[in-house]
Amino acid sequence: MGKIFVVGFGPGSEEHMTFRARQAIEQSDLIVGYKTYVDLVRDLIGDREVLRTGMTEEVTRAQAAVEQAKSGRTVAVISSGDAGVYGMAGLIYEVLMEQGWEPGDDPEIEVVPGISAVNAVAALLGAPLMHDFAAISLSDHLTPWEVIARRVEAAAAADFVIALYNPKSGRRTQQIVETQSILLRYRDPETPVGIVKSAYRQRQRVDVTTLEDMLNHEIGMLTTLIIGNSSTREYHGRMVTPRGYQRKYTLTGANERGRLDPMPWALGSTKD
Amino acid sequence: MGKIFVVGFGPGSEEHMTFRARQAIEQSDLIVGYKTYVDLVRDLIGDREVLRTGMTEEVTRAQAAVEQAKSGRTVAVISSGDAGVYGMAGLIYEVLMEQGWEPGDDPEIEVVPGISAVNAVAALLGAPLMHDFAAISLSDHLTPWEVIARRVEAAAAADFVIALYNPKSGRRTQQIVETQSILLRYRDPETPVGIVKSAYRQRQRVDVTTLEDMLNHEIGMLTTLIIGNSSTREYHGRMVTPRGYQRKYTLTGANERGRLDPMPWALGSTKD
Ligand SMILES: C[S@@+](CC[C@H](N)C(=O)[O-])C[C@H]1O[C@@H](n2cnc3c(N)ncnc32)[C@H](O)[C@@H]1O
Ligand SMILES: C[S@@+](CC[C@H](N)C(=O)[O-])C[C@H]1O[C@@H](n2cnc3c(N)ncnc32)[C@H](O)[C@@H]1O
Repeated sequence: MGKIFVVGFGPGSEEHMTFRARQAIEQSDLIVGYKTYVDLVRDLIGDREVLRTGMTEEVTRAQAAVEQAKSGRTVAVISSGDAGVYGMAGLIYEVLMEQGWEPGDDPEIEVVPGISAVNAVAALLGAPLMHDFAAISLSDHLTPWEVIARRVEAAAAADFVIALYNPKSGRRTQQIVETQSILLRYRDPETPVGIVKSAYRQRQRVDVTTLEDMLNHEIGMLTTLIIGNSSTREYHGRMVTPRGYQRKYTLTGANERGRLDPMPWALGSTKD
Repeated sequence: MGKIFVVGFGPGSEEHMTFRARQAIEQSDLIVGYKTYVDLVRDLIGDREVLRTGMTEEVTRAQAAVEQAKSGRTVAVISSGDAGVYGMAGLIYEVLMEQGWEPGDDPEIEVVPGISAVNAVAALLGAPLMHDFAAISLSDHLTPWEVIARRVEAAAAADFVIALYNPKSGRRTQQIVETQSILLRYRDPETPVGIVKSAYRQRQRVDVTTLEDMLNHEIGMLTTLIIGNSSTREYHGRMVTPRGYQRKYTLTGANERGRLDPMPWALGSTKD
């Protein structure tokens, strides 16, 4: 019986990988992944057989993994972050389903969850999520820009904290500009924005800026942005979103549910 | 110098905890957490001092952690999943900021990211995220229901995959009913819905059903739901969302970018 592990190894450093992810790599005969990802977990891979492909060759990778697993091998397909978030999990299923595979058939498939960029980046910024959030990829390679723009607008209007994946690449530079202008229609220009490059990797960079100023900072392929909601506050270079809108608790008193005792920095919209 | 680790230990089983989360617990003098969470990582805690409190006593927990860290101790505040997603990270910052603390001051604070329920649950369901998604908590304890309902509607209209945290509790039973009716205004009744209880814990339960039928399944405090977008498909009890809308790739041919070769099950909306 062959097996495919679809493994998210987290943001990059081994510290933020799970035990199961490590185990999956150690139990595999063959590791399949994008070159950069393979290099990130090189130490763990040891002298296992490796199939490294280019960034755009996901389909080739998925097909090769399925083929090898069908011949009885244990294959780890690795993604950075979580393999289910803009990663390889869906594609492996698509290839298997196309071939008529059903759960229970050979090969077995196990998706091993990982720390996704939104969570890694948030931890470095402080506590910017805390409340409802939307994750949006700005890559229009497989999704029409109108669909993406509509999502940015919907999330902005409904006051979600917003995480932007794939904000920009060498060729793709306008999406982030348009995104900013959509956001500015709904959010205060002073809304805190966190920009994190290479979280938990070499050359990590953490910036907290504002919606108005965000384009004056370095944004690239390895960056994730977090746009605050109307109650997110910047605090000495960190970003914190309070848990709710109604402060049913007070931080100084003993009564946790009784008084509605908002702190000035934590309540309401900055818009008015 | 005191230190506070705000640790997300993942869905529950130690396998899906990161190395850093384990290390943080091992390096701490005091573990602070909600009773059930403390029990989940009991083995790791060993005979370290523990402060266990009830579910609604988050503020007390945060205050105690800060106080102990200020007296020079190393304190781990533990949350299930990711501490930055409806967890303790924000509250720890709120308490510190209220006291005039700034980064660089004592105590040091480190947020250790963890696998959040949305990622754990998605891995068990197959590959339901893959595309843009929104995480929404249905708890109206600190957020007015109108804000939550508006987010559900915005996310539904913009075709986000939607993860619902805190869908229901003993006293809170109507939110999930109203949420379903909002969703049905925008999505096909046959839209796949994943319902996962206690992911990676004892009594784990994984169901794939439809939007129309979701209320006929067990939903409780330990459940997370994932509502598919218009292209999500159910496949023999798994849930898969294709990566994009335009199939710029083909799974059978060699040419990955050239042909637009949609697979019948993967394309377009079920609505029409
Ligand atoms: C194809 S997506 C892969 C996402 C990945 N599966 C995850 O769950 O994090 C690539 C995007 O993820 C984000 N990303 C991945 N790793 C990152 C890191 N270490 N630091 C910051 N952003 C990262 C960036 O936005 C990048 O453009
Ligand atoms: C207060 S929130 C805490 C979320 C947590 N910080 C996280 O990132 O997963 C509690 C909700 O998280 C979800 N949840 C947490 N652990 C879960 C698990 N093991 N399986 C399914 N849902 C879970 C449920 O929706 C539950 O109502």
